[in-house]
Formats: sequence, C-alpha cells, structure tokens
Amino acid sequence: MSDKSATSLDKVLDHVDADLDAAMARLMTLLRVPSISTDPAYDADVARAAHMLAEDLASLGFDASVRETTGHPMVVAHGPDEGPHVLFYGHYDVQPVDPLELWHRDPFDPAIEEQNGKKVIRGRGAADDKGQLMTFVEACRAWKAVTGKLPAKITIFLEGEEESGSPSLVPFLEAHADELKAEVAFICDTGLFASGVPAIVTQLRGMLQEEITVTGPSIDLHSGMFGGIAMNPIRVLSKVLAGLHDDTGAVTVPGFYDGVPDIPDDLRDSWDALGFNAEAFLGPVGLSHPAGEAGRTGLEMIWSRPTAEVNGIWGGYTGAGFKTVLPSEAHAKISFRLVAGQDPLRLRENFRDWVQAQMPPDCSVSFTGHGASPAGQMDTSHPIFEMTRQALSDEWPKEAAYIGCGGSIPVAGYFKTVLGMDSVLAGFGNDDDAIHSPNEKYNVESFHRGIRSWVRVLGGLAEG
Amino acid sequence: MSDKSATSLDKVLDHVDADLDAAMARLMTLLRVPSISTDPAYDADVARAAHMLAEDLASLGFDASVRETTGHPMVVAHGPDEGPHVLFYGHYDVQPVDPLELWHRDPFDPAIEEQNGKKVIRGRGAADDKGQLMTFVEACRAWKAVTGKLPAKITIFLEGEEESGSPSLVPFLEAHADELKAEVAFICDTGLFASGVPAIVTQLRGMLQEEITVTGPSIDLHSGMFGGIAMNPIRVLSKVLAGLHDDTGAVTVPGFYDGVPDIPDDLRDSWDALGFNAEAFLGPVGLSHPAGEAGRTGLEMIWSRPTAEVNGIWGGYTGAGFKTVLPSEAHAKISFRLVAGQDPLRLRENFRDWVQAQMPPDCSVSFTGHGASPAGQMDTSHPIFEMTRQALSDEWPKEAAYIGCGGSIPVAGYFKTVLGMDSVLAGFGNDDDAIHSPNEKYNVESFHRGIRSWVRVLGGLAEG
Repeated sequence: MSDKSATSLDKVLDHVDADLDAAMARLMTLLRVPSISTDPAYDADVARAAHMLAEDLASLGFDASVRETTGHPMVVAHGPDEGPHVLFYGHYDVQPVDPLELWHRDPFDPAIEEQNGKKVIRGRGAADDKGQLMTFVEACRAWKAVTGKLPAKITIFLEGEEESGSPSLVPFLEAHADELKAEVAFICDTGLFASGVPAIVTQLRGMLQEEITVTGPSIDLHSGMFGGIAMNPIRVLSKVLAGLHDDTGAVTVPGFYDGVPDIPDDLRDSWDALGFNAEAFLGPVGLSHPAGEAGRTGLEMIWSRPTAEVNGIWGGYTGAGFKTVLPSEAHAKISFRLVAGQDPLRLRENFRDWVQAQMPPDCSVSFTGHGASPAGQMDTSHPIFEMTRQALSDEWPKEAAYIGCGGSIPVAGYFKTVLGMDSVLAGFGNDDDAIHSPNEKYNVESFHRGIRSWVRVLGGLAEG
Repeated sequence: MSDKSATSLDKVLDHVDADLDAAMARLMTLLRVPSISTDPAYDADVARAAHMLAEDLASLGFDASVRETTGHPMVVAHGPDEGPHVLFYGHYDVQPVDPLELWHRDPFDPAIEEQNGKKVIRGRGAADDKGQLMTFVEACRAWKAVTGKLPAKITIFLEGEEESGSPSLVPFLEAHADELKAEVAFICDTGLFASGVPAIVTQLRGMLQEEITVTGPSIDLHSGMFGGIAMNPIRVLSKVLAGLHDDTGAVTVPGFYDGVPDIPDDLRDSWDALGFNAEAFLGPVGLSHPAGEAGRTGLEMIWSRPTAEVNGIWGGYTGAGFKTVLPSEAHAKISFRLVAGQDPLRLRENFRDWVQAQMPPDCSVSFTGHGASPAGQMDTSHPIFEMTRQALSDEWPKEAAYIGCGGSIPVAGYFKTVLGMDSVLAGFGNDDDAIHSPNEKYNVESFHRGIRSWVRVLGGLAEG
C-alpha cells in the first residue's frame, strides 16, 4: 500500500468518524419514506425514495437517474470513468410492517435507541436494506469530501422491487447490460457471520414462491346445514400442507432433491470451524431445537439444504367471535428455499402437479406464481474477492470468512446469468436485526464500521 | 273444530293475505338494523333491534320488555293469561356479512327481488332469523286485529346472542324459569324439508366450538435466515387439522364416537321414504360428492352423525404480494357438530389433550372455548306436536314430516335441561336461503305461508 493512498485512506476514515452523526441523519431521512414495494398503496412512496437517492448521488458527482420500469423504478448512477469498474447493488424498498401492533414505535419514524447495551437505529428498512446501501453511499461521500474524487469507476444500481419478487430486474439487466456489466458487483444485503465477525457470502439459496387457492363449494356454507356432507377446502389445504414434509423433515415434492449436492468436505470443515451453535442461534427467538432434516448440521439447514415453508394461510372466518361457516375457498402462500442444482421452474411444475393430484372430488386448485430464482454460487478467483476479505479483516475485530447464506438474493444469480459477473456479497447485519419482523433495527456499529469497511475496499480498488 | 273458530280462523287467514305487503314492510324495517352479535362494533345496533321488537309487541297488547344481560339483551313479552301457555322463541341477531364484496346489494338495505322465478326478501337476517320470527309476530298481529285478542297465553322470548354462542342464555333461563316455562316451546329457526314440504324437527345436532393458537418462535422470522432450522407453527397447525379425519372421513379425536347411537330402523325407514338425493342437495352449491363418513347416507351425514369442521384458519402474511416470513403464531377456529350421546365438555377436554399431545419441541398451543351445547332429542308425545303437524299439513301443499336437523339450536336443548320443556321446531326456510353466506334471502312464500301456518297453530291452541 503506497504512503499517499495510506495517508488519504486514514484521512477518509477519520472523516467518516467525524461525519457519523450527519450520516445517520441522512439515513433517517430515507427511513421515513414507507417504500413498501409489495403493496400498491405505497407506490408513490417507493418512487419518492428513488428520487431522493438519485438526487443525493448526483450531489456526489454521479451521473444519476431514476429509470422507469413496468414496476417500481431503478436508480442508476455512474461515477467518472477512472480505475477499475465495479457495480454496487442495494435495494431501497422495504418489507410490509404488519403486525403493526407489535412495533414499539412507528416503523417509519426511526430513532436511535439502546438495545442490550448497544446503540441501534430502529425502523423498517434500517437493516434491510436502506441502512446497508447507505454504508456504501457514505463511503463514496467520504472519499469525495477528502480527496475531491471517487477512487474508482463506480456504478451504483439500486432496486425498488427486491421485497416483491423483482419482476422488472431481469428485463432491465438485459436492456442495460453494457452500462451495468463491471469487473465484479458488490452487494450489501447480507450480515456478519457473528457479532464482530465479518463475512463474504459465496453461496446463496434461491427461491420459489407459490400462492395456492383451493376451492370447494361455490359459496360459503352453513356448517349446520352442510357440515358432514360438503367438502371443506380448509381440510383439503391442511392435508396438502401437512404432507409437504415427511417424518424426517425432508420435503416430499417429487424430484425436489434431484441434483442437490452434499457440500465438499473442505467447505464442511471450514463451516464446522466457525463453531456455529444451533441452540445459541435459536435461543434469541424463543426456540431450541433445529427443525430441519434429520442428520444435518444447523449450518447445512440454513445454508446448503433446500426448504419448504408456508409463509401465510387464510380461509373462512378469522374475525372476532365465531362463525360456523364452511368456506368456499382456502389459501396459502408457500415458498421454497433452493440450493445449487435445483431448477426453480421445473420445481414449480412438480409442485403444482403434486398439489393438483391431491384434490378430491368437488375441489379444484389454482396457482399464482410469485418469485422464482436459482441459488447462487460465486467464483471467488477474481482478486477483488481476496482484497475485500482483507479490507473487512482490517476493519473488524475478527478475520473475515467465506460463508453461505440461507436467504435469497436473486440479483446475485442474475448478475451471473445475465451479465456474466460474480458478486462480492458483503454486509454488516446481525441475526437480531429482526428484518421482516416488527422492531427492525441496525446496529450503529454496523453502520459505522460498514462505511469504514467500504472506504477501505474503495481504497484497495484505487491501488488496482 | 267449532263453527265459530272456523269462521274466525278463515277471517284471520284472509286478513293475513290482505296485510302481506304491510307485514313485509315491517320486516324490512327490522332487517335494516345490522344486529351482528359476534362483533362488538355492532353492540348498539343489536340493542336497537331489541327495543324495536319490544315496542312492536307492546302495541299488540303484550307486556313486553327489554331485559339486560352481561351480553346482548333479551326481549320477553307476555300476552294475557288465557288458554294454554306456550313460549315462542326466535333470535333477532344476525351473522357477520363478510365477504362483503360477494353481496349483490348492501346486506342491510333489504329488497324484494326475483330469484329463479320466485319472489324473495333479500338481506342479512331475512331467513336467519328475523324473517322467521316475524312470521309468528305477524300471526299474533292478525289474530289481534280480527278477534281483538290473542287466542292463547303466549310468551314471546327473543334472543340477541344466538349467532355468538348464547353466553347469557342459560343464566337467563335459570333466573327466569317461572315466567318462561310453558307447556311447550315453539322455535322458528329451521327449514322446510323441501320446497312445499313442511317439517317439524325432532332431533338437532349440538355444537362444540374451539379456537386454537399454535405458537413457535417468539417473533416473526425471516425464512431466509431461519428457514429450515426454525419450526413453523403453520406447519404444525396444518398437521393437526389434517389429522382430524381419517381416510374414511371419520373424526379421529379419541372417544369422539363414544355413546353415539345408530338411528332406529323405523326412523331410518321414514328418512329413506323422504327420498333425499345427495347430488340434488349438493348441486346448487357446486358440489356433487357426499364428503362424510364412508357407508353413511346423506341424511345421516347431516342429521345423525357428528362432524369436525375448520371454520377459519389464519397465520403469517395474508396480504397482497408475498412476504417470506416464518410466523410466530398460527390460528384456527374449529367446530364439532354433536349428536345425542356426546358430552360437549368431555369432548372439549379430549380434543385439547389430543392437540396438546401433537405439539413438537418449540411449539406450544393455547385454546379459547366458544360455544358448547348438547344435541337435542324431542319427546313428541304432547298433543301440541301432532296438532302443529296437522296445521302445517293444512297450510302447505304436502304433508308435514318429523325430521332431523344438522344445525345446532342450543336453546332447544336448554329449554329441556333448564325448563323441562320440549320444543316444537317448525320453520319455513329453504336450502338455497344462503344463511351465513352472502346474498341471504327468504322466500316471500315462506314468509306468507309461515304467517298463515302460525295462524292455524294458534287457532288449534284456542280449541285447547
């Protein structure tokens, strides 16, 4: 590392420390926008968040624009053409906030609070993903403030549909491949392996989302008049869902495990070395027993094994009191976490055929397909991977590790399939951030060290 | 039948025909009150309906009053002390109206419409039970208008909690046994056996209502981070519900069929003689296959066999789009239709023990008990039963039959257990009335012949 860049790196890091309060204030402004992408009622707010970010990036010297799609807009911002070209990806949309009554404060009135002796930024999107994407934006801001320029050719690409299946993403990548393709992509939407232990995710589970509706009688019926002689669609739906797993916890959909590999011994060894403790992982959410496939380790269950989960179910009378109705319809939202080797679209057909075959006389089933994305497996040979791992190790108390991730970050897969580009997945979330849950938070330490981590990574890029 | 009463009977019947439009207008006024007893939001409307009825009955010479309870009020109206004492029961509360979007018109803006070539009164409560209870009130009004008095000692008892488990009923009956006990009770909350075929119900199924909540993780979880290692309460609930019935359609709760008798051969023969056609019964609601216990007839399934039905289920994300959440809780409302020989409270314990025993590690279950009432079996030896059957046969095209009923009319059971009084269950609903469903209606013919039927019954009482 040359003296000059070393000096400027230290200056930029100092600037980040001095500017932290202002950076948090900027994040708060973004968190106040209820950019819930899955609910059309919030479309205007999603657009507002996009324009807010584009204006901020323009102020940093980016050629920034809000690009319309058939869904929510994309934000694309190109820095000056100097040094290696990298793409940064984040998403500015957020999850719904229900059940609202479980929030301690308005999800969109963020505040700095104290939790378990640590300062946290509380609010929907604080961790997923507004707080994380802003760590990179603030790192750029700091380099610009101290050195007057950005240390590499940076393209920032922000999506507004990540929490609603990314319907516009692939068409947009295909239509703008030339301007978006870079040496690598940085994606900041993941977490630390553990408190103080940074990580780069090199394998991600994919996702298949299905909504099913079982229909029995043509109208809701009175269970006194028809109970016993009329088929109840809730009974049929329950039977289907109860059969999704066998007694060993394995998923029963035909062909579900076709092509699913066991992890290589060396990766298994390195994962074992992380000392993951399932009970310690589950304890904070009130659980203690790993509920996955018998004979698999906790990390396999969340990183390298596919799953089936019912994310929502509804039918009949769900209000106050009681209504003795036999409903006409019963519904469920079901998602599958997929691993390398599984084809989402083939599994969608297998699943639909499997459900269809279970319909008794007098019941029909209809399907609505939501997201479908393959698992992601990174080729870590590009030197930027190791440079980033070193930068993270320099910033955080512990050495950075290459790990897996149970979540789906479809964009990483599309960057590979559409743009032929691997992604460096580095993020700073903690397991207790309660993303997708009430009272989501992001540790101030994650925000602060996150910015400093990107400052170091950009410094590494400057050295080429 | 003496000439005098014959004359007056004919005069009263003629009066009913001449007054029909006014009678329907009076019913409409009552139907406009949204007296939904299961939802506290409508408490004031329930009370309003009670006062409206008490005032109307007072205008007919009844000593009528609205009696407060810890829940919704009762209406009690005593006629002059002359002739045999009979109690009439009906309920003025109604079912909720969701799903509202399936109604063709405002459920509480009733109107006369044409359906399948017949005039019908459309609106929530038209058949269940405001339209039916008004058939008796109008019969009293006609006798009073023509003869200047009521033909027997009539006590009218109207409940406002029938659709919400009747929590106040038994305490009220116990506290007011002296004034409510009569020779028999008339209950008008049932239907014709078939169009034009009147019926008196002599056996009713009882009811047990349970609400269960399965709790897994202490908060909603992200299915990416926790999917595969955390137990999903919807999965557990689905398994419980799927196990409620075995492959033959029998209910699996331990001891469920203890003490459940097969029907006597003579009753089976008379039921067979009714020529019930399951396909014809199911066809109008889009079904064709009897879904009950293998080897049972359609009438057994709905009249003499107990059932288990899921009336409502909910958990996780049920809004627009998709949310990959592992919910903390999953809920279901379950009801059991019971027959003679089954003890609701013992079955409640059996059910709870059976569910509890199915909870895996990390899941707990809690229960909320709703209604619980035994099945009813009438002793038809009192002459009023046969007199009523004759009166119905005189009014309708076909002979009246003694039948069973799949529904629960708990009050009939309580009249017997608390007041030692049998009930004559005579009503005029049709299977296509869509009670408890959108677009509930009551045929104008049912309303008209219903009034005339009660006029004949009251005439019969006058003769002693």
